[in-house]
Amino acid sequence: MSKKIKPVILVTNDDGITSPGIRALVEEMRHLGRVVVVAPDSPQSGMGHAITIDDPLRMEKVELFEDVESYQCTGTPVDCVKLAVDKIIKGKPDLCVSGINHGSNSSINVIYSGTMSAAMEASIEGINAIGFSFLNYGYEADLALCRKVARQVATEVLKNGLPKNVLINVNIPNVSLSHYKGIKICRQAVAKWEEEFNERIDPRGKKYYWLTGKFVNYDHGEDTDEWALSHGFASIVPVQFDLTAHHAIPFLNNNFKLNEESK
Amino acid sequence: MSKKIKPVILVTNDDGITSPGIRALVEEMRHLGRVVVVAPDSPQSGMGHAITIDDPLRMEKVELFEDVESYQCTGTPVDCVKLAVDKIIKGKPDLCVSGINHGSNSSINVIYSGTMSAAMEASIEGINAIGFSFLNYGYEADLALCRKVARQVATEVLKNGLPKNVLINVNIPNVSLSHYKGIKICRQAVAKWEEEFNERIDPRGKKYYWLTGKFVNYDHGEDTDEWALSHGFASIVPVQFDLTAHHAIPFLNNNFKLNEESK
Repeated sequence: MSKKIKPVILVTNDDGITSPGIRALVEEMRHLGRVVVVAPDSPQSGMGHAITIDDPLRMEKVELFEDVESYQCTGTPVDCVKLAVDKIIKGKPDLCVSGINHGSNSSINVIYSGTMSAAMEASIEGINAIGFSFLNYGYEADLALCRKVARQVATEVLKNGLPKNVLINVNIPNVSLSHYKGIKICRQAVAKWEEEFNERIDPRGKKYYWLTGKFVNYDHGEDTDEWALSHGFASIVPVQFDLTAHHAIPFLNNNFKLNEESK
Repeated sequence: MSKKIKPVILVTNDDGITSPGIRALVEEMRHLGRVVVVAPDSPQSGMGHAITIDDPLRMEKVELFEDVESYQCTGTPVDCVKLAVDKIIKGKPDLCVSGINHGSNSSINVIYSGTMSAAMEASIEGINAIGFSFLNYGYEADLALCRKVARQVATEVLKNGLPKNVLINVNIPNVSLSHYKGIKICRQAVAKWEEEFNERIDPRGKKYYWLTGKFVNYDHGEDTDEWALSHGFASIVPVQFDLTAHHAIPFLNNNFKLNEESK
């Protein structure tokens, strides 16, 4: 019995199961293990860590990827991970990869990202998890660099594992292979979206709004994901779901008068 | 000119603008400043940090709270905060409060919570922000303790501010005023939901699933929000949106072989 058991790799995303990004990811992961796909049946971008509580979920087996067990689901990316673990794999896969997202999930975008939420959900469930995102929105974009980075990073995670309760956020710059500099371990840059709503009037005379905005990076550090990406590197940020701001606990204990009257 | 300018307090939630929780919060905040309400027109629970990208948003002025400028919005809690800042207040309020949520947002629930995401969005925009949640789902529940805690905590935040890029997550235990022990500053407990999907067959013979689950606390620490809440305390957890797992950076740098071939 010298045959090695292949690792089980769950693939999901938030652009939907028909996007070029998930296809590229499935094809690369097939070299590394037995792939199972559970992904949304339609685009879910901007869904954050949404879960479906008030509606029933549907899940359907589909034949989209040669020799790969695949399901499309009516829910969010987080629902897909939960369903995959509970109903399809019936246990923990060795790795969960989410993406490749068509568009950046660097710095503060991690908060709004369905791609990263799927990976985070897997991590909460004790599964090594990676989110991949490409700094190019176009469905026609060349994914060659993304494929290379995804396979390389997934190989390292399968080999080394990840620290407990840590997942990784991988972003890939929009550069040609010849301008690509390599991969950098980074921290999340301090950045935000400055919103401007585009106000319009509908044919019946009523106002409506489109969310638009400008991404602003306030962070001049050279150890951030934004710096790496703008200098031709792919970025890896280790991400945690313990959101406690431990450094703020003494401030609150020292300044807030909370229990005087309740003694 | 001895008249003090009242602080501006933005109130939002994820249960929708007609829930008893937001009414209680509006009534308490009116004692502390000029209140503006921008909240979803329907329940948004489990929406995480979702934003509305692919649909236009509607916002309508409503008369629900006496002498309080109020709007209902078709979007998510995060959309409400963005719209309030950009279109209604046209600048930063002095405080943003979200809730009072009908149901717990302690420990890992912070990740799935629309209530906390609204507060987090405000904090990303540089506004002091608080999420309030009550460990009782019932719309008929007595909110007296919630009111007391909300007013007390909001008063302290208006007086002392919060550390930069930190918001607070306040959960209120489901106990009578006489069993209430006070307020504790805590860290987020290590806990998760163990999913079980309830599988059913629809009238046309097709499978569908309801998300259900059991909350499991793995954390025996006495400094956690779960400990506080189960011992009759309200919990305050300071929360950050820099998700970088800084402690994992050396592990990745030491173990991952990422750049050998790209040199």
